Amino acid sequence: MNKHKLTMNEFIEIVNKKLDEYLIIQYPEDLFKSMRYTVLLPGKRLRPVMCLETCQMLGGDFQDAIPTACAIEMLHAQTLIHDDLPCMDNDDFRRGQPTNHKKFGESTAVLAGDALLTFAPQIILKFSQNLTPETQLKILNEYVQYAGAYGVIAGQVVDIESEGGKIQSNKEETLKYIHIHKTSDLFKLSIRTGAIIAGADTEKLSILTNFAEKLGLAFQIADDILDETATFETLGKTPGKDKNAGKLTYVSLHGIDNAKCKLTCLFNECYDILKQYEIESQVFTDIIEGIKQRVKI
Amino acid sequence: MNKHKLTMNEFIEIVNKKLDEYLIIQYPEDLFKSMRYTVLLPGKRLRPVMCLETCQMLGGDFQDAIPTACAIEMLHAQTLIHDDLPCMDNDDFRRGQPTNHKKFGESTAVLAGDALLTFAPQIILKFSQNLTPETQLKILNEYVQYAGAYGVIAGQVVDIESEGGKIQSNKEETLKYIHIHKTSDLFKLSIRTGAIIAGADTEKLSILTNFAEKLGLAFQIADDILDETATFETLGKTPGKDKNAGKLTYVSLHGIDNAKCKLTCLFNECYDILKQYEIESQVFTDIIEGIKQRVKI
Repeated sequence: MNKHKLTMNEFIEIVNKKLDEYLIIQYPEDLFKSMRYTVLLPGKRLRPVMCLETCQMLGGDFQDAIPTACAIEMLHAQTLIHDDLPCMDNDDFRRGQPTNHKKFGESTAVLAGDALLTFAPQIILKFSQNLTPETQLKILNEYVQYAGAYGVIAGQVVDIESEGGKIQSNKEETLKYIHIHKTSDLFKLSIRTGAIIAGADTEKLSILTNFAEKLGLAFQIADDILDETATFETLGKTPGKDKNAGKLTYVSLHGIDNAKCKLTCLFNECYDILKQYEIESQVFTDIIEGIKQRVKI
Repeated sequence: MNKHKLTMNEFIEIVNKKLDEYLIIQYPEDLFKSMRYTVLLPGKRLRPVMCLETCQMLGGDFQDAIPTACAIEMLHAQTLIHDDLPCMDNDDFRRGQPTNHKKFGESTAVLAGDALLTFAPQIILKFSQNLTPETQLKILNEYVQYAGAYGVIAGQVVDIESEGGKIQSNKEETLKYIHIHKTSDLFKLSIRTGAIIAGADTEKLSILTNFAEKLGLAFQIADDILDETATFETLGKTPGKDKNAGKLTYVSLHGIDNAKCKLTCLFNECYDILKQYEIESQVFTDIIEGIKQRVKI
């Protein structure tokens, strides 16, 4: 029997429905409203979709991965809330709407971010009862590894340190470090957990980690390009902010043309990996082609 | 054989040594230095000591509880770092030293707090291999329950909402809500996890949860009293801040004398619970008597 494979839009719909369900407003209402606000802003839901699709394309039951996929989107929202704070990137708009602290005030935004950081693994623990305890622990291990001081937060710290042209040596290495941790780590978390839930072996896990790293790097380079070339309407946030802050980006280091060239290479490498290991995925193709279209390559 | 029972000071020494070991400085160094800074400030280590002692007094091996105990101290440090931020309580001093954001800047302080929130469960996962997967999951469940939106963060949100005399009705209930979540929840987490690791049954767990709630309420009332009566030298932080912020505290609601009276009652109830269930604990006696001495009752 040829089982129907879910499309990107079908996955997005599932994720949106579940996120809404998981984030019921309770007392203190402002806290839950603030958590919901950023999590439920319309978005591409790339990370949860990657988690569900990885599980699906490896022959697993994507239903088992829904709590984890949604937890990763919550974690992603947490990074956005705290990144946008006045003491960080100081952004007023996100996905075309006022940022969390603009809407709810700074103290609530800090606490909503904190709350999401533990709410996310709580969703995994609460709704993954059909996974074995060992698999649940594996998933949680991935979560703390990529969400924490060795993961996305390390990337954010170095990103902020790079502002104002403060990085003078090893720029190339520092940039790669920032991109790997700030962006690829959440892609790795999404793809690896999807694979673990599908029962992938160590070899497949390692191949997919490599794939996730490249896809994350590509995504971040695309983001760097769009920061310089897109309008507020396309971005949903203020463009040109990285440049004005003197941040280390792929574009500031190599220029737009080289960035587009690197992006094409990375996407080709991603396709090669899938092809080499005979992994067929319309969803990942759609994700990659979607980014290509946005940056016009 | 009458096994030697560890004292409070012996537990404190173990906790300090392990916290130092767990928090090795890595790249990006500022992040880890900032995490270490607040976690390792000299403190009473009440919460980890309660966790270890609960395990010990119920006949468990306290060694098994060390990672969890240290994780709870990290979580506690996280709440201090974010509570002290300019957009929250705006404190410049903590335990007699500059607060984290004063020392490392606001953005690093936000990120160090975030990092500790996932570093703490990572320590539990990494070093609790001698616990069964089921027990590890139980401990993590407790962690996310009391650390998150249903726990300490809920208390902090309502605490901030109460500033400037904004709470006009149900003051008594609101105050109890703040105290239970802001303070008792970490006490519950400490005592319940210690008990779970010792293999306590549901009945014992429920008794000890009640004990933890009362002890937490007492501790917070003592804190409220000290905020109005103690000096900077005794507190290690600026006194009178709650009063100046117009916060809802037990003292603002009932006055110092009634607060001291309530405190005595709560401690008596704590002793009664231990006595009734024939639980002997020199360490909890020392904790209670220590607080009594500080507030001079």
